[in-house]
Amino acid sequence: MKRILVLGAGASSPYLISYLLEHAEQHDWFVTVGDYDLQAAAARVQDHARGQALQFDVNDSELLSSQIEQSDLVVNLLAPTFQALVAWDCIHHARDMISVSYRDNRIRDLEQDAVRKGLLILTEVGLDPGIDHMSTMAVIDRIHNDGGVVTGYESYGGGLPAPDTIDNPFAYVITWNPRNVVMAGEKGAQFLDNGKVRIVPYHHLFQNTWSVEVPGVGTMEAYPNRDGLSYRETYGIGQAESMIRGTIRYPGFSETWSQIVALGLPNETMRIPDLADRTWAELVDMFLPTQVAGDDLASRVANFLHISPTGGIIKNLRWLGLFSDEPTGVAGDTASLAMTALLNRKLQLNPENSDMVILHHRFTVRYPDDGDRREQITATLVDRGEPGGPTAMARTVGLPAAIAAKLRLTGELPLTGCHIPTHPAIYVPILRELENAGLVFTEEVEALG
Amino acid sequence: MKRILVLGAGASSPYLISYLLEHAEQHDWFVTVGDYDLQAAAARVQDHARGQALQFDVNDSELLSSQIEQSDLVVNLLAPTFQALVAWDCIHHARDMISVSYRDNRIRDLEQDAVRKGLLILTEVGLDPGIDHMSTMAVIDRIHNDGGVVTGYESYGGGLPAPDTIDNPFAYVITWNPRNVVMAGEKGAQFLDNGKVRIVPYHHLFQNTWSVEVPGVGTMEAYPNRDGLSYRETYGIGQAESMIRGTIRYPGFSETWSQIVALGLPNETMRIPDLADRTWAELVDMFLPTQVAGDDLASRVANFLHISPTGGIIKNLRWLGLFSDEPTGVAGDTASLAMTALLNRKLQLNPENSDMVILHHRFTVRYPDDGDRREQITATLVDRGEPGGPTAMARTVGLPAAIAAKLRLTGELPLTGCHIPTHPAIYVPILRELENAGLVFTEEVEALG
Repeated sequence: MKRILVLGAGASSPYLISYLLEHAEQHDWFVTVGDYDLQAAAARVQDHARGQALQFDVNDSELLSSQIEQSDLVVNLLAPTFQALVAWDCIHHARDMISVSYRDNRIRDLEQDAVRKGLLILTEVGLDPGIDHMSTMAVIDRIHNDGGVVTGYESYGGGLPAPDTIDNPFAYVITWNPRNVVMAGEKGAQFLDNGKVRIVPYHHLFQNTWSVEVPGVGTMEAYPNRDGLSYRETYGIGQAESMIRGTIRYPGFSETWSQIVALGLPNETMRIPDLADRTWAELVDMFLPTQVAGDDLASRVANFLHISPTGGIIKNLRWLGLFSDEPTGVAGDTASLAMTALLNRKLQLNPENSDMVILHHRFTVRYPDDGDRREQITATLVDRGEPGGPTAMARTVGLPAAIAAKLRLTGELPLTGCHIPTHPAIYVPILRELENAGLVFTEEVEALG
Repeated sequence: MKRILVLGAGASSPYLISYLLEHAEQHDWFVTVGDYDLQAAAARVQDHARGQALQFDVNDSELLSSQIEQSDLVVNLLAPTFQALVAWDCIHHARDMISVSYRDNRIRDLEQDAVRKGLLILTEVGLDPGIDHMSTMAVIDRIHNDGGVVTGYESYGGGLPAPDTIDNPFAYVITWNPRNVVMAGEKGAQFLDNGKVRIVPYHHLFQNTWSVEVPGVGTMEAYPNRDGLSYRETYGIGQAESMIRGTIRYPGFSETWSQIVALGLPNETMRIPDLADRTWAELVDMFLPTQVAGDDLASRVANFLHISPTGGIIKNLRWLGLFSDEPTGVAGDTASLAMTALLNRKLQLNPENSDMVILHHRFTVRYPDDGDRREQITATLVDRGEPGGPTAMARTVGLPAAIAAKLRLTGELPLTGCHIPTHPAIYVPILRELENAGLVFTEEVEALG
């Protein structure tokens, strides 16, 4: 019997855990699901004969170590900051790890140890990062095979409400870790635009938006996502003059969110005494300089931000509850934790509604051996969740990781070292199974003049 | 013989190392100075019979561990991020540690282990943090002794050129870790102002300045420094309605630096390819959106920032070299590393000039048993470096740490656990010796109506 340890039973986990349990009998697996919230873990396992739920605290290093030692493979869905901790223990006990978070330098540093011990540390194997890399590499490898040169690459991703079920002014729903929604973009972003490097600091990020036409969905809004430039090397397209990764929202989201960033509310550092007892209005007021004038809090916020006191942005902030005289009741002590609680409450996915994930890539290609012919290839994935069922987010984040785990345990993924899924040995079988599950990219090709 | 290990031979170290070596014979000490730059370490030790220089890399965990094991006490002057690493090893090998960086949660977590093993982990024992805490606590303990209640506290600190030796438009010189100058304030700040919590995010920090009169120096500029509010608990003055810690600069510094922050140049995350070969103008251009118009780079920067293209701020940015067509030649790959190199070059302390450090505290006090009499107490320290000699910065950062090390090794500091120097057992003997060395606070008392 092979033992699989799944760490994290949050919003991204249900589909992955169901998949592993469904295949457990066939492959003789036993699945342990650990979460700080035992009930959440138990709800995922549901008394399955080949599964068990575990009360798990990643900061309990003895528990982490003993659980990893008892497993054959670890699937990590914990918050990004814990990925390296789990990976270190996997290396120590010589266990493979599959993870959906971004690879960082702490993971890169494990390359030699992973190779020496014959282990696979596979990160960025969810949706975005994950399916985006795999679908991109499938197209790029084909272009290179056809003698083409990628001269430009743009890639967009987002998790949103389905267009016909939008029920709030942010046109957004929380389908993954809300902390990451609140702190999104905190490190700023970088991209390459017609040969020029562009760096956008956090305080300008959500002002730096542009329109993107997504086939089958319509005109969306994008803001730059992390270091898009760095993927030129990762994808082996060193001649690309444009390299952009963007996050997709419905038009208008960023106009309001940029003002939440301008106020400074996504703040995880300053510890606010007695936050639970303070009102939302008090919390917002902390971010205004004393000398800002105005008849009420909303007017003062508007004056400080140089926006209309009677316009749409203030209306949205009011709808969110930021001017309310009710106590926050928040258990934590930072403005970020308060915002997380607020978004969780106000931007919940109504069980009658559907979420939707979008991945949309654009490649501009030159064929030097074919008269320098140029074309644009787009590849688009749009997936809707079923009302009341697993979200599209849970399915598209969880399935790639689940498939990777299966391939590894059945000996069909014989790589060693620290990888992200850009190697055909990884992306070919995973994309094939995603396609069988109905997750298919639609491609369009257009000749460029 | 007692062995002292000093980690770090940078700008803050010379005075401390000289002190330890000067007292080595008397107390039978041997001093090992480790730095990544062996020559820097050797320059500090200068073939002293009771000292040795060591090529030291904090990331070499075996070297770190073996060196700490061989020592009786460790003095840590490394960059803040390494403090916890050193502390962990000190706990492991049961060695005392003296350090000048801020205590963080990773240090707080060691409290139990330190107590159990009878160790002292003493952090924040330099200038600011360091002498600021000690001088503050001396006044507060006296006020409490006199039956007074501290109703307001403001504390300011800064390291600057002496007023008569200002030779650049920033009125600033680099006398400590230049990385910390470039990234100063990156986490934003918080303070308590007449009962109201005020949080200032990074992108507003240097716009949020006010004037401070420093006795003997004149009118200076201050911006908020970190979480000033949290020191209400630390200092035991829970009734204070105002709690402000500020950083002092000559007036005008922040006006220009706030625009460097607005551009986004203090960025340690985005890795810029081929940075050494790119010009300063190219680097700055990366931070401008494409659509910003202007005849030249300076005009485009001015238009983007909504500042005068022919005014003082642009003039200062030009003087710094940000519009230059020379390659940066920088070894690193981030804008922050480029800025560090630039400041190091342009804001060097000329050997004929003097630096100056300032600490300035203001307490407002109420005496309930004395007819509610109210007064303001100020305490001010101004120290000048000797031209060509150790800087005032090196002296005021190094001497408190050196004295603490001496007291610990001679058995005069019998505390255990994780401390900052707020306990009289620490601050009384250190302030006494600082006073003997000429570092004396001047106090003024003013009755308030």
